[in-house]
Amino acid sequence: MSNVFDHPWLGGLFSDSEAAAIWSPARQVTYMSAFEAALTRALGSVGVIPEETSDVVAQKIESFEPDMFALRTGSARDGVVVPDLVRQIRDAVGGEPRAIHSGATSQDVIDTALALTLKDFNALLDSRLTSLLNALENLQVSFGNANLMGRTRMQAALAITARDRLRTWSEPLAVHRNRLDRLGPAVQRLQLGGAVGNRAALAPHGDAIAKDMAARLNLENPSNAWHSTRDAIADYANLLSLVSGTLGKMGQDICLMAQQGVDEIAMQSGGGSSAMPHKQNPVLAELLVTLARFNATQLAGMHQALVHEQERSGTAWALEWMILPQMAQATARSLSAATEICVSISRIGNQDRKNR
Amino acid sequence: MSNVFDHPWLGGLFSDSEAAAIWSPARQVTYMSAFEAALTRALGSVGVIPEETSDVVAQKIESFEPDMFALRTGSARDGVVVPDLVRQIRDAVGGEPRAIHSGATSQDVIDTALALTLKDFNALLDSRLTSLLNALENLQVSFGNANLMGRTRMQAALAITARDRLRTWSEPLAVHRNRLDRLGPAVQRLQLGGAVGNRAALAPHGDAIAKDMAARLNLENPSNAWHSTRDAIADYANLLSLVSGTLGKMGQDICLMAQQGVDEIAMQSGGGSSAMPHKQNPVLAELLVTLARFNATQLAGMHQALVHEQERSGTAWALEWMILPQMAQATARSLSAATEICVSISRIGNQDRKNR
Amino acid sequence: MSNVFDHPWLGGLFSDSEAAAIWSPARQVTYMSAFEAALTRALGSVGVIPEETSDVVAQKIESFEPDMFALRTGSARDGVVVPDLVRQIRDAVGGEPRAIHSGATSQDVIDTALALTLKDFNALLDSRLTSLLNALENLQVSFGNANLMGRTRMQAALAITARDRLRTWSEPLAVHRNRLDRLGPAVQRLQLGGAVGNRAALAPHGDAIAKDMAARLNLENPSNAWHSTRDAIADYANLLSLVSGTLGKMGQDICLMAQQGVDEIAMQSGGGSSAMPHKQNPVLAELLVTLARFNATQLAGMHQALVHEQERSGTAWALEWMILPQMAQATARSLSAATEICVSISRIGNQDRKNR
Amino acid sequence: MSNVFDHPWLGGLFSDSEAAAIWSPARQVTYMSAFEAALTRALGSVGVIPEETSDVVAQKIESFEPDMFALRTGSARDGVVVPDLVRQIRDAVGGEPRAIHSGATSQDVIDTALALTLKDFNALLDSRLTSLLNALENLQVSFGNANLMGRTRMQAALAITARDRLRTWSEPLAVHRNRLDRLGPAVQRLQLGGAVGNRAALAPHGDAIAKDMAARLNLENPSNAWHSTRDAIADYANLLSLVSGTLGKMGQDICLMAQQGVDEIAMQSGGGSSAMPHKQNPVLAELLVTLARFNATQLAGMHQALVHEQERSGTAWALEWMILPQMAQATARSLSAATEICVSISRIGNQDRKNR
Repeated sequence: MSNVFDHPWLGGLFSDSEAAAIWSPARQVTYMSAFEAALTRALGSVGVIPEETSDVVAQKIESFEPDMFALRTGSARDGVVVPDLVRQIRDAVGGEPRAIHSGATSQDVIDTALALTLKDFNALLDSRLTSLLNALENLQVSFGNANLMGRTRMQAALAITARDRLRTWSEPLAVHRNRLDRLGPAVQRLQLGGAVGNRAALAPHGDAIAKDMAARLNLENPSNAWHSTRDAIADYANLLSLVSGTLGKMGQDICLMAQQGVDEIAMQSGGGSSAMPHKQNPVLAELLVTLARFNATQLAGMHQALVHEQERSGTAWALEWMILPQMAQATARSLSAATEICVSISRIGNQDRKNR
Repeated sequence: MSNVFDHPWLGGLFSDSEAAAIWSPARQVTYMSAFEAALTRALGSVGVIPEETSDVVAQKIESFEPDMFALRTGSARDGVVVPDLVRQIRDAVGGEPRAIHSGATSQDVIDTALALTLKDFNALLDSRLTSLLNALENLQVSFGNANLMGRTRMQAALAITARDRLRTWSEPLAVHRNRLDRLGPAVQRLQLGGAVGNRAALAPHGDAIAKDMAARLNLENPSNAWHSTRDAIADYANLLSLVSGTLGKMGQDICLMAQQGVDEIAMQSGGGSSAMPHKQNPVLAELLVTLARFNATQLAGMHQALVHEQERSGTAWALEWMILPQMAQATARSLSAATEICVSISRIGNQDRKNR
Repeated sequence: MSNVFDHPWLGGLFSDSEAAAIWSPARQVTYMSAFEAALTRALGSVGVIPEETSDVVAQKIESFEPDMFALRTGSARDGVVVPDLVRQIRDAVGGEPRAIHSGATSQDVIDTALALTLKDFNALLDSRLTSLLNALENLQVSFGNANLMGRTRMQAALAITARDRLRTWSEPLAVHRNRLDRLGPAVQRLQLGGAVGNRAALAPHGDAIAKDMAARLNLENPSNAWHSTRDAIADYANLLSLVSGTLGKMGQDICLMAQQGVDEIAMQSGGGSSAMPHKQNPVLAELLVTLARFNATQLAGMHQALVHEQERSGTAWALEWMILPQMAQATARSLSAATEICVSISRIGNQDRKNR
Repeated sequence: MSNVFDHPWLGGLFSDSEAAAIWSPARQVTYMSAFEAALTRALGSVGVIPEETSDVVAQKIESFEPDMFALRTGSARDGVVVPDLVRQIRDAVGGEPRAIHSGATSQDVIDTALALTLKDFNALLDSRLTSLLNALENLQVSFGNANLMGRTRMQAALAITARDRLRTWSEPLAVHRNRLDRLGPAVQRLQLGGAVGNRAALAPHGDAIAKDMAARLNLENPSNAWHSTRDAIADYANLLSLVSGTLGKMGQDICLMAQQGVDEIAMQSGGGSSAMPHKQNPVLAELLVTLARFNATQLAGMHQALVHEQERSGTAWALEWMILPQMAQATARSLSAATEICVSISRIGNQDRKNR
């Protein structure tokens, strides 16, 4: 079954094509090269190397295409792809070792590439949240006054309207969008620290180079490297799980509403069964619950990775690599699935959707 | 071993006395009564009951002391303490059923009591963060220029100063204090929704009663109940784990610095061994790592509890009860232990603390 | 709210009195003293000290009652209770330092006390599993032929009998009982390793002392200390969560069956509501789900604690202390609650319980 | 970064090629077809269809190659691949609908394919455990008498030999191999239940068909379907994490031993740095810690999936799909990496490896 997001058929259910593109290795290569090119240009700007040199070299870096097999071998050996990538770039560009990767370290490259990825991803999240909020608003308009039985502790309590329940689905999403506005800049930031995080090998130009690079890459420019202070990343993972968790609640509610005997919702589409052709399974609503529980599980790993020893932890950092991209993709898919559900709802309570 | 926070001897290591007081059952009773008294007064303010009645009843509620054994029996039966608490209050006050708990539900009482508890706790966190930041600032002053070996991937890399490493301990804490400023109000808020969360039984006075109660209780007044939208609570749990995670990194660093052969730190106190009287164990630094991993683990449970079905989930809500108070106490203890460590540090790198 | 198991009123819902007694600090003191007395007697048996001395000292240890406040202070200082406990015992017994704690270390005392606790607890688990299996067998007899709607993916599928569903509740429990038979001995075993786990300070009598102690304490006698090899403990935690997870499935099924509109189960008792006197909440069934999700969460922490560095990890070991006792109590409570539920079921499907 | 196991360059570090082949979609298709072919043959054996028909159809199934894009579309629609796979098979084979998938359900196909996958994987695990135990035995022979400083709570305690520490690495692995012997059959078993798990649509031949299929597929034949009783799967996930956890302890020890100032181990290879060519990072030892913490995290999700409602849970089952294959691959890689480390160790303590 390998991985559901990249899986040939499970990907149809679990994967979000836009998110997959953002988190693709191809994008990652592009952004690692973007880091190296920006650094080279910045070295020129501050005068460490001649500006002409920096232009020529940066252009070569920008058009560089790595030997992927060698990157794989290098990653196996070094635990990180950058040493071999830099070697390949140096071989390809030729002749100007000081113009390439000077004063930087692997983590600068990989974390900055992550920051650029997250910038793309945050734009997607924001757009997805907006679409879903609109879709939920449409449900309010179509079905807000429908009567539902309010249920507490799984038992019928008192009558409510669909508006009451829909509000519990949409209200947190609006808050999440605010959270995203605030957290976005905290993760869309340059990483530049050098070998031990203090920009020593870039002195006395470290801060100037950082400022120049951040501007070129359109990233925030934090006053220091964040090699071993991963709170913003863990905080961001929390936001991802808050979003999927909110949608898990929505999905659980829909599964419960769709039960025979309860019959408080109808959807135009639903999954088929290999044994019972008559069944209509609330597949996407179930998916929301699965993705919520997946992300809730993963979040613990991202917080374990906060215990990031000394100037760089090989163990904690690699744990982020294993988890964060999956959490992001799970969140993106939960948003797109939730919107698909909203659009397919044809009845809530006793109220059918009018002509659409 | 039961529970480390309330344990007769393990409490000496794990417990923080101020946090324990805030999370005590006694405080909880006080705050549940405060909710009921505020509701009674608000019912008087808006004219549902005569103001004189409301004053008299509220005063009786405020001085009411419950029969704890009956509360226990009631909790076992009802899954929640409030039905029996309200019964006891009604029995004690006598005669005015409409003046007591009208239009409210168990979750209103318990969540509002939680909000009041969190308000106390946030003040403690803020003060603890400030103390710790001061203690770290003192370390900077005393030891900032000491030489250390920067280490990445557990290997000696390049020389740094203590300032570089201390910065990675303190910088996130300042951010956490800002996070707390922002998240505090999001959890210090009234819960008032009634049976199914829409304030129907308080109509047409629901919003007026809420406003009045929030003012009396000095809480935020959200526009709606948050019975089944638990994102603020999960977000808050994330903050707790961010704090303890940051301190786990500090603790791990100190344990590593204290190793023989590395010898980059000395502390005036350390734990003894039953087998080796000569040993000085970095007990509090280890504790920071333990508490960080504990909270990271727990956070997954708080996010599982986001899947809160329908208008109130008995299962997800009770899961919060099992986890959140422990996370809070773990965080408080990690802050006090970290400050104790800072004060006890007598050497970093090759630099001894001067006259103190 | 502090801790639900020891809480004055929440304990009514969450706590199991027999499990609480087994995991009490009092029991722990008894078992730590039992370790020290058994060691003293073994030192006599192998001739390290005169047998008369060992008898006299062991009897004094067995009747020793510690100063709990001093234990607390010692735990805070040393990170573990044993150094102060041994000091107190030595003070109380007087005169024979070699007769007390010779060649042992803190972890020997605490882990052996845990093994004795687990022995008691395993007997409780076994008895609880048997009771519950009997109660489920009674349900089979009473209701096995009742018709239910089989449901897959939350949707009506095809008719089944209650027997089909009851089988999914009981079948894993019988397997868990077998697992317990096998895992019990793996955790009910002496810990004896001394300062660094190799029994060096007991040479040449280490193995003979271990054999003697294990026989006296009625524990297994492993060939080596297990100070830093915690797989049996983590494996045991897994069993606890398997049991509560199986019961979580049962609880979830019952909550779903109890829904109005589904109406496939009736219970004689159910929790009341402070707002809606007519409601009957499936409180204990919800509790089963909560406890399952709690233990599933905790299990991750117990497995994080497998990364137990060198000869003894202060951090990983203390993490076990924070988690395992709670998992055990959650499991015991889930078993007693499940049995209570079985007894209270008065109808499944369309079939009422006959004369009771 | 998508998924580390399938990633073009990170796969070099994280992936185990043999494990990847076992968990590949291609293998999964083969095993789903094997289920369908075995069912068809069994339907012939028991006389539901003519044996000649069953032979012809089964052969066609065995050589069937699905349209992967259609499988993807079907999975997106149905939440599971089987309805479309069966449709494709029926289209390809033609004419004999009763000969194909009769009485079976999606979960029968997917869980049986999982069982076959686990059978392959268990053979790999067993072989990997044996290799690693041999490699560790070689370390004992080469370095067992080397002197090390025993360390407890991160502090130097008393001298030990390398034998003492190596024992803590190997002893649990031997136990894990026994665990695997026992758990293997519990997961290498046929799944056959039909729509609601009771084999009703196969009556009266259900048990005979199951027996026949299990024999053909060389799987265990449980007396009932295990659609909603997932304890064996969760128990198996626990075993995976026990193995990686044990190796996490080994990896952590090696990282600590490799520190400058401690210098208790040397390895022939180590990862390079992009900033510091002189460094030798203990990349594979770090990887062991990462994989241990990853699996510990994931295990919580597998136990959350025990709460598998009614006759089949779309949510809990899909959560297994997201997690279990990754845990398996992490475990396989931790075993191969640990063996690589053992082979590369050239010194422990003060003792060099002799001519090899």
